[in-house]
Amino acid sequence: MEHSEKLSIVCFSGDFDRAVAVFTLATGAAATNREVTIFFTFWGLNIVKKQPGHRGLGRGLLARLFNLLMGGRGQLPLSRLNFGGVSPRLMTRMMRAKNVATLEELFEAAKELGVQFVACEMAMHILELRREDLIDQVQEVIGVSTFLDRSRDAKIIFI
Amino acid sequence: MEHSEKLSIVCFSGDFDRAVAVFTLATGAAATNREVTIFFTFWGLNIVKKQPGHRGLGRGLLARLFNLLMGGRGQLPLSRLNFGGVSPRLMTRMMRAKNVATLEELFEAAKELGVQFVACEMAMHILELRREDLIDQVQEVIGVSTFLDRSRDAKIIFI
Amino acid sequence: MEHSEKLSIVCFSGDFDRAVAVFTLATGAAATNREVTIFFTFWGLNIVKKQPGHRGLGRGLLARLFNLLMGGRGQLPLSRLNFGGVSPRLMTRMMRAKNVATLEELFEAAKELGVQFVACEMAMHILELRREDLIDQVQEVIGVSTFLDRSRDAKIIFI
Repeated sequence: MEHSEKLSIVCFSGDFDRAVAVFTLATGAAATNREVTIFFTFWGLNIVKKQPGHRGLGRGLLARLFNLLMGGRGQLPLSRLNFGGVSPRLMTRMMRAKNVATLEELFEAAKELGVQFVACEMAMHILELRREDLIDQVQEVIGVSTFLDRSRDAKIIFI
Repeated sequence: MEHSEKLSIVCFSGDFDRAVAVFTLATGAAATNREVTIFFTFWGLNIVKKQPGHRGLGRGLLARLFNLLMGGRGQLPLSRLNFGGVSPRLMTRMMRAKNVATLEELFEAAKELGVQFVACEMAMHILELRREDLIDQVQEVIGVSTFLDRSRDAKIIFI
Repeated sequence: MEHSEKLSIVCFSGDFDRAVAVFTLATGAAATNREVTIFFTFWGLNIVKKQPGHRGLGRGLLARLFNLLMGGRGQLPLSRLNFGGVSPRLMTRMMRAKNVATLEELFEAAKELGVQFVACEMAMHILELRREDLIDQVQEVIGVSTFLDRSRDAKIIFI
């Protein structure tokens, strides 16, 4: 199968609503035969942590604290009107009621559609995250230059 | 008139300052003979609601509540230093004092310059917004794949 | 030296974490022989103010107030979990501990690698910033259309 177009998404944000945007774009693009790569960095790494909840990862005190506070895929906040985490749950209920794919379903669809997941080396280093702290779907940990090289003939979208 | 270049803007944000960025880029590009499309999604839909104020749209309780809280074009908050909505008004005053186009003027200019307004089907579905809840300038309600197809030879900017 | 590719970054955000993303991308791209331009606008102008601290710039009362509150490169907040400005300092300590370039080091590297710094004319006008309020590295103050013209054969990333 030949890919007609390439899309590279830098997933910097760890907000629930922006994560929905990332995976809606990724699956919409992959479903129409585009080659899609998501480069998870900084807050975006929360989305691909193995542990969906709050968990102090890393050995240093600061890294443990930041990872604990940042949490995982199960605790992504809405970028506005979060109301202490209630809104993402209500939003998911609305998505389900309208038969729209939830974030978890979009996430699974992205995997099935062959969307490539890569993680940012530098951000992982700062946050003391190891490869084994991330879900298996993350195929590689790469640097920014490698990401740019691979996105040479792709559109890059920063979210 | 031949278009030399195409620009597609995903307007995800409903912040006042980011909306100014969207419309400044859109009008600047359109004024220099570029073909511009703005794809309004999620918070960005607030900018193209017919009602500029807070209003509970949709039939479901949650949709009504979210739309009420999100508000319309007249209540866009500043992404930082919003001070309960005072800042966007002060910012507009500063723009006027310096003879810089205000958001409302940029909005009108975009329409006159032929910027295409399209709305995201999925986001409207989740938020229970109907076509008639949006301003007439929104020409179509389309899905992500259609947006990507039309942006094939365009630069895509996510704001 | 021939440039194989061009990258234009719109630096709209004045958040510490997003500024790190801007300069990591810029230096990573420039180090691999790409031609990089950063267009500083709105909150992003804080990063290139000569004064790193809070300072009321401009003559009008509102402009002075906004500049005072927005501050400079030394006071960039984290977009989340800022804790009154403590987090950017802790994050910098983590970066240093892991031998990752800090924001200040990335900033210097960008200058040395020939990254072009340009500032947004309209945003400077609204905020009453003058050319001499910005660091010398800012080579030009240009409008959106000029920026788009120069980015004709570049990828554009909005951060």
